[in-house]
Amino acid sequence: MPRRLKGASSADTRSAILDLIRSSGRVSRIELSERSGLTEATISKIVRTLIDGGLVVEAGFAESTGGKRPVLLELNASSRYALGVSLDYARISIVLCDINGAALHSHSLAGTGRSKPQTVIERVAREIAKFLDKHGIARDDVIGIGVSGAGRQDASGGVLRSSRQTGEWEQFAIEAALNEASGMPVILENDANCAALGEFWSGRVSTAHDFATIYMATGIGCGIVINGDVYRGASSNAGEIGHLSIDIDGPECFCGSRGCLEVMATPAAVVRNARENRGLWERLDLRDREGEDVRASFGTIAAAAMAGDVDAETLVRQAARHLGTGVLGLANIFDLDRVSLAGPGFAVAGPIYLQVVRDVLDRLAFMRKVHPVTVEMGETGPGAAARGAASVVLHSHLTPHHLRA
Amino acid sequence: MPRRLKGASSADTRSAILDLIRSSGRVSRIELSERSGLTEATISKIVRTLIDGGLVVEAGFAESTGGKRPVLLELNASSRYALGVSLDYARISIVLCDINGAALHSHSLAGTGRSKPQTVIERVAREIAKFLDKHGIARDDVIGIGVSGAGRQDASGGVLRSSRQTGEWEQFAIEAALNEASGMPVILENDANCAALGEFWSGRVSTAHDFATIYMATGIGCGIVINGDVYRGASSNAGEIGHLSIDIDGPECFCGSRGCLEVMATPAAVVRNARENRGLWERLDLRDREGEDVRASFGTIAAAAMAGDVDAETLVRQAARHLGTGVLGLANIFDLDRVSLAGPGFAVAGPIYLQVVRDVLDRLAFMRKVHPVTVEMGETGPGAAARGAASVVLHSHLTPHHLRA
Repeated sequence: MPRRLKGASSADTRSAILDLIRSSGRVSRIELSERSGLTEATISKIVRTLIDGGLVVEAGFAESTGGKRPVLLELNASSRYALGVSLDYARISIVLCDINGAALHSHSLAGTGRSKPQTVIERVAREIAKFLDKHGIARDDVIGIGVSGAGRQDASGGVLRSSRQTGEWEQFAIEAALNEASGMPVILENDANCAALGEFWSGRVSTAHDFATIYMATGIGCGIVINGDVYRGASSNAGEIGHLSIDIDGPECFCGSRGCLEVMATPAAVVRNARENRGLWERLDLRDREGEDVRASFGTIAAAAMAGDVDAETLVRQAARHLGTGVLGLANIFDLDRVSLAGPGFAVAGPIYLQVVRDVLDRLAFMRKVHPVTVEMGETGPGAAARGAASVVLHSHLTPHHLRA
Repeated sequence: MPRRLKGASSADTRSAILDLIRSSGRVSRIELSERSGLTEATISKIVRTLIDGGLVVEAGFAESTGGKRPVLLELNASSRYALGVSLDYARISIVLCDINGAALHSHSLAGTGRSKPQTVIERVAREIAKFLDKHGIARDDVIGIGVSGAGRQDASGGVLRSSRQTGEWEQFAIEAALNEASGMPVILENDANCAALGEFWSGRVSTAHDFATIYMATGIGCGIVINGDVYRGASSNAGEIGHLSIDIDGPECFCGSRGCLEVMATPAAVVRNARENRGLWERLDLRDREGEDVRASFGTIAAAAMAGDVDAETLVRQAARHLGTGVLGLANIFDLDRVSLAGPGFAVAGPIYLQVVRDVLDRLAFMRKVHPVTVEMGETGPGAAARGAASVVLHSHLTPHHLRA
């Protein structure tokens, strides 16, 4: 169901019509009028400005319903672009999307590692410039850069405040620095919110639905979409399911609490638990140092679990059950009927996680007698966060803001 | 900050102006115009219909700011009323509120116990009729009846679907039955949402703020207010924090899961745990049968804890720490900066709960470096849920619906 327009200001109305055209694929002015509740005269005026601005093009005719065949409109997909960047300890990804949110090109570079923030940002800006040149994209045609980062943020200052980064990132204004270095508008969003908006823009989830996307890389977060936008909370840090405790006297977490999903269910936790099984550890040649090591070791365990290694499967199933218990809490608190699992943490053993999480929700969701909770797999490729970050730019630029809180 | 009006339909505009007058106390037409963004002519027209309808009265003059002294408007508090009913196993409360949400009269009757739903509803309708007669309130001046119930609901049918009630309530359409029996409009809402809207209408919480109210009777739930209305989720069952697990391998809960707040932190759990301390159990003469027994025994333990009984205090502090861990999860997921504790479960040992929950959030909230999470005590009297249910009627009738999702 397309969103209904109600009392938007003229800029909002324009965005809303753009959004209706995007979500419709191809659509006539009459249909836009019917779906928006605006008069055909108003629609015609708005469509004119969108065509003049190069955002919308006419694309053939619809069937006649008696009179003249109505002209169909569609987004001019290559009129503008959005860039997404995911800043990760082990790897930085850059993705270029068209105005529909489809990924056109991507590029990978070395991660942030222990480099100084300013050094990283300048490197990213240089790589972006080269990347755009290589693909013949004019800087003026890029709406902006979405940056995906893990951990706490200070939204007002565009600052990452993650305990997992070095202290220098805590005071570092990423948005301002990358804007300065690249000359383009920049928006910072946490990786889970990027993934949720990526799901939304992928068209896999209807805009009429509230839903949550569990995002798993080496850590776990979630993006919660309410009324067509990410729910951000008091300081843009909503969705920290990684710090939901499912074992009050369990192992200590870096956040100070105990038994958080972060220490019970993440790929890093699976690798730590694997160390206690010496046979498995040596058989699979595992390592549990930071960053790429954990990711590689988890990938190895996940692959072994999928191949039927009983020890590996036990570890992955245990992590999946822990994750499922956290998702169960989330579903009970939000009364969700839809959850997606996304991010590179699900790339290999996704089917196991999907089966276990589904089973937990089917058996235990508090509202199971009223409605089921659907769990689906979302995007798990290495560029998921970066593509999501580009979606954040599109969402911020093209979505009617009156739909936001 | 008063809410800004944006593009409401005319009925919404009227509700919104009424809401502005209510939240302002006394206000002039010029101030209404400034705060709403509507022209003085529009305001005058709307105010006229509100005065004609008896909802608003003129009440003196403001200071002159140069010209004529502007007339002040206020709600005609006794123009209309709302009834609130809380359906509880051990006691049913009825509260009559004026249009400001202030409780005028209240009445208590025997609880639902094991009676058949239809019998209970007919009894409630008879008691309401007597109650209104006694206080000289005309039925036509009552906007409607808000009903507060514990547990799962099926909002579309106005049905309670709680596993704690007998099976008969699961298929019983409370709204329709009470409407039929009383002749008044009825709205069903869970107790925690009632409590949250009660906080909102009490004026203790600014309408500009998202917040959560933890409601504790013999069980625990929470009402989450987002953008000026309760967040209801897919089937009006959002806020089931009682079924958030904080101990994945902990004691079994009636919902099928383990380690839920329901079995770790509720008054019922405290009473169950007290049984394991024979000395305490006998010293305080405790019982743990259903309903009023659990409530009375918990009250005894809570009073002993407040009086310095070390064993009792240990039990209450343990429950408070478990509750705090659940609230911590809620705060991390929603990025809350404000939580209130309400309901009769906090009536006696509220100060202990408040101190422990505050301590947990101060030490462990994931976003504590960005902002604090304020925890305050809300209404804990026996009529809190019923007064909250009356607020639901006022909220539904008087609040501009375009502010809702």
